[in-house]
Amino acid sequence: MLLGRIAGTVVATRKEPLMEGWRLLVVQQLGVDNQPTGGYVVATDAVGAGVGEVVLYASGSSARQTEITRDRPCDAVIMAIVDTFEVGGAEVYHK
Amino acid sequence: MLLGRIAGTVVATRKEPLMEGWRLLVVQQLGVDNQPTGGYVVATDAVGAGVGEVVLYASGSSARQTEITRDRPCDAVIMAIVDTFEVGGAEVYHK
Amino acid sequence: MLLGRIAGTVVATRKEPLMEGWRLLVVQQLGVDNQPTGGYVVATDAVGAGVGEVVLYASGSSARQTEITRDRPCDAVIMAIVDTFEVGGAEVYHK
Amino acid sequence: MLLGRIAGTVVATRKEPLMEGWRLLVVQQLGVDNQPTGGYVVATDAVGAGVGEVVLYASGSSARQTEITRDRPCDAVIMAIVDTFEVGGAEVYHK
Amino acid sequence: MLLGRIAGTVVATRKEPLMEGWRLLVVQQLGVDNQPTGGYVVATDAVGAGVGEVVLYASGSSARQTEITRDRPCDAVIMAIVDTFEVGGAEVYHK
Repeated sequence: MLLGRIAGTVVATRKEPLMEGWRLLVVQQLGVDNQPTGGYVVATDAVGAGVGEVVLYASGSSARQTEITRDRPCDAVIMAIVDTFEVGGAEVYHK
Repeated sequence: MLLGRIAGTVVATRKEPLMEGWRLLVVQQLGVDNQPTGGYVVATDAVGAGVGEVVLYASGSSARQTEITRDRPCDAVIMAIVDTFEVGGAEVYHK
Repeated sequence: MLLGRIAGTVVATRKEPLMEGWRLLVVQQLGVDNQPTGGYVVATDAVGAGVGEVVLYASGSSARQTEITRDRPCDAVIMAIVDTFEVGGAEVYHK
Repeated sequence: MLLGRIAGTVVATRKEPLMEGWRLLVVQQLGVDNQPTGGYVVATDAVGAGVGEVVLYASGSSARQTEITRDRPCDAVIMAIVDTFEVGGAEVYHK
Repeated sequence: MLLGRIAGTVVATRKEPLMEGWRLLVVQQLGVDNQPTGGYVVATDAVGAGVGEVVLYASGSSARQTEITRDRPCDAVIMAIVDTFEVGGAEVYHK
């Protein structure tokens, strides 16, 4: 899993029927210093994340192991909202 | 999933029989600023996308979770045509 | 899928028994300008591709969705020989 | 699999129910010289690893092949604590 | 699949039980010029490869398609020992 920050939203009306009902969020990847790495992904929201929140997301087939994404064409899912993370004994982020 | 723009087409007559009937499109990856990143993928079209359109595509095994790609050798599928996306509260793209 | 050019061959006699009978080809990745990107992969040939030909190859679990690779340890398969591809309205490659 | 060093922890109370009970650890990737490469991953701990330890982790669907991660949205798992590794005939790391 | 050279070994006694009996080898990635690319992977040995040998390895879920890795948390497997490979009509490597 990787750390990311919710940066925006994507709207698509013409789509694979199996995507119906998904919230599609733009997630900026974060490094362990809580700074953007420059990468991003558009992920399906499984936990009700809001713009600006720090989250964990899973990629690949593992992204299909949630109730709303199972057997659907999803390769990235937001699976947790991060409360805190620490690196090297120091708290880097606190919600 | 990632954002991309349909840039072209690929024609192949000698191919795996399971690919029969696919439209194969060249998709240029886009960053969250709607600019090309330099990367691309050749993806199977599941939604009737046209050249120039901004789309979402899924990669890996998730690309096989659509009706036309299930159990077939597809590792990238165009699954939605993007209407709008916004980042940091500002609309970056509007169809 | 990605575009590549068949650049060579690999011979291995001591191998996983499930690989028996495969033609293993060195595929140089191509960009959408038909120039090598510097990357390569060794792929199993599912279509009878020859050295110098431009092909499409699939990676990951999707590479196991052909008759000769199913349930075998293959993570890259040549699935089509490209006749033509065009980008931005211009033909970039013609066989 | 890749080598990594446990660098920290992630706490998340709002999450996919299938993640319940996981220890989520920040793993810094190591090169074969035992130095950080700059990359990281947040991995589920399957072996009781502690901060500072050198570990092996698996990514992708293979990360779901342990008792605590099977059929769950996990794309990285810590599967072994490294005792020693050697490269080019010289021991690079000894626990 | 990619080409690599066996560069070393990893020893881990505390590990996922499903890993029992594996030989874990450090594999340096090779380019098509037979030179190291700088990347590496720790792979499970399915063919009895020795240090210094040039091998083919598979990654991701395909790494679980051998007898000793099936349904186990393995994301890289050494599946063949390379005898020769040629690129551009010239033999680059001969065992």
